[in-house]
Amino acid sequence: MDDWLRLIRNKEKRHIARLISRIENGDPQKTKILEQLYPFTGNAWLIGITGPPGAGKSSLLDGLIHHLRGQKKTVGVIAVDPTSPFTGGAILGDRVRMTRHALDKDVFIRSMGSRGSLGGLSRAAKEAARVLDAAGYDVVLIETVGVGQAELDIMNIADTVALVLNPGAGDVVQVFKAGIMEAADLFIINKADLPGAARLQAEIEELLDLVKQSHSWRPPIVQTVSTKNEGIENLWAQMNKHRRYLEERGEWSGRRKRHLKEEVQEVIEDMLRRRLELELSKPEFQMELQQVAERKKVPQQVAREWLERVLGKTGGEI
Amino acid sequence: MDDWLRLIRNKEKRHIARLISRIENGDPQKTKILEQLYPFTGNAWLIGITGPPGAGKSSLLDGLIHHLRGQKKTVGVIAVDPTSPFTGGAILGDRVRMTRHALDKDVFIRSMGSRGSLGGLSRAAKEAARVLDAAGYDVVLIETVGVGQAELDIMNIADTVALVLNPGAGDVVQVFKAGIMEAADLFIINKADLPGAARLQAEIEELLDLVKQSHSWRPPIVQTVSTKNEGIENLWAQMNKHRRYLEERGEWSGRRKRHLKEEVQEVIEDMLRRRLELELSKPEFQMELQQVAERKKVPQQVAREWLERVLGKTGGEI
Repeated sequence: MDDWLRLIRNKEKRHIARLISRIENGDPQKTKILEQLYPFTGNAWLIGITGPPGAGKSSLLDGLIHHLRGQKKTVGVIAVDPTSPFTGGAILGDRVRMTRHALDKDVFIRSMGSRGSLGGLSRAAKEAARVLDAAGYDVVLIETVGVGQAELDIMNIADTVALVLNPGAGDVVQVFKAGIMEAADLFIINKADLPGAARLQAEIEELLDLVKQSHSWRPPIVQTVSTKNEGIENLWAQMNKHRRYLEERGEWSGRRKRHLKEEVQEVIEDMLRRRLELELSKPEFQMELQQVAERKKVPQQVAREWLERVLGKTGGEI
Repeated sequence: MDDWLRLIRNKEKRHIARLISRIENGDPQKTKILEQLYPFTGNAWLIGITGPPGAGKSSLLDGLIHHLRGQKKTVGVIAVDPTSPFTGGAILGDRVRMTRHALDKDVFIRSMGSRGSLGGLSRAAKEAARVLDAAGYDVVLIETVGVGQAELDIMNIADTVALVLNPGAGDVVQVFKAGIMEAADLFIINKADLPGAARLQAEIEELLDLVKQSHSWRPPIVQTVSTKNEGIENLWAQMNKHRRYLEERGEWSGRRKRHLKEEVQEVIEDMLRRRLELELSKPEFQMELQQVAERKKVPQQVAREWLERVLGKTGGEI
């Protein structure tokens, strides 16, 4: 085994952090690194936690980490904030709380922002999660801020997806429209001591009745008050229930295979796109475009011709 | 010239409506139809109007149509609502107002919803706009509801993009985050008789100072009260100013060429994606995936192999 791989597998935090940075910054060795890591992956339980900004996800994570450490489980965290330019450390104020685990060898926390992630934050976050999986953390928590398509995309690698909402925040319908209702395996009503928790619970139940579930699992709704550490134990129990549910039906591996399929497809599409961009940056294409602009050629016709050119070149670099 | 093409060019509304439906529903002849239409396009001024639901876009459009008809200009309208399942007619309540133009031969209005648009609503809307362009309408207005990525994408074909906001609606920051500030050539503060119009104006100005403009055009901010028909004349004057600005700098054709490039690229990517899906639906791919799941193969490696398979097949249907 290579030296660096041994250091990662030994959970050397400094080396893990540096490796994630290299991957994030599009290191030329990236693909090779990921390939060497891959055989060691597949053991971590990947748990996604998403929700609007200010829902209290970080303190919830803090409580969950604490609970998991009490059970002697090792924990990796990827905290993704697409609206933040910061990346690398626990720079964001509300993440400072998690630093009580900073000296714990068996907890690794990494923030990722929009800066410095060549090839997209979503891809970088997934690859970082894979590094933590290979390092041997029992549980890898992936936190994302927001309820949009990008956040959903990151959740695509998780075995279990939890959605955090707050009473009175009024974002249930937005969540519904973004298609996250279908993706969530579990709902968390955090700040459940605020007025409106019962109403939010009723609203979610109602929407769950509306949404056609693809299987028989009905997402439980867990109430927590993360700042007072309330409901964390129940949350963990419900997550375990979801895991058992998947395992008993063969859906645990089924879901993972679906995720792998999507990943392979994504990688191929990326390669094709890069190849296409290279081809379309040629001056000949600009000339063709001029002809289209002058209505001497039709866009569909030019598209077909250049598709042939892309497909024709099977050799060489992609 | 084919009969159907003559009917379209003669602005026969029933035939235009039917042709748009065929394209929307993925008619097998679609590509051929679009190719035959293409030489007649490029004459219409494509104007995109977007904004949050309830901003008063429809009554604004109604006023604009009325104003344009006073100048003897013919007008086509594509009203896109991604949240509505309806398509085809003026079904939506707030579009009823526009029906005062229903008997006017030189005004064509088409609603498009999420239902029945194979290949995506965004693509269908762009193709419908092209039909109206070929039919010979002087101005084609494209209205979209919302301020997300999909709406931005539709705006990608417009020569001039206007963004409608309301005082006190508090969506300026959301708009800013969605990247529409950069796309807007013009801001419309509709319902400008409501309290907060001046503050909204100041907020937009402030954000405009922040956003690095790619050229020297600073988007003007126009105040309108569409229900009282106020500000429409000034709006049209500002739109014309924008057009002159583009034309004087050669940016009118430059922008159109950029849009055409994006279109060709989109068509090629669509073709490649369909081909990839066909390839990955084969049982051999499932077997490879099983190997990846068992960590006997690496996703990147499988991706490279199947990329070669896709690229290898240059003959046959795409």
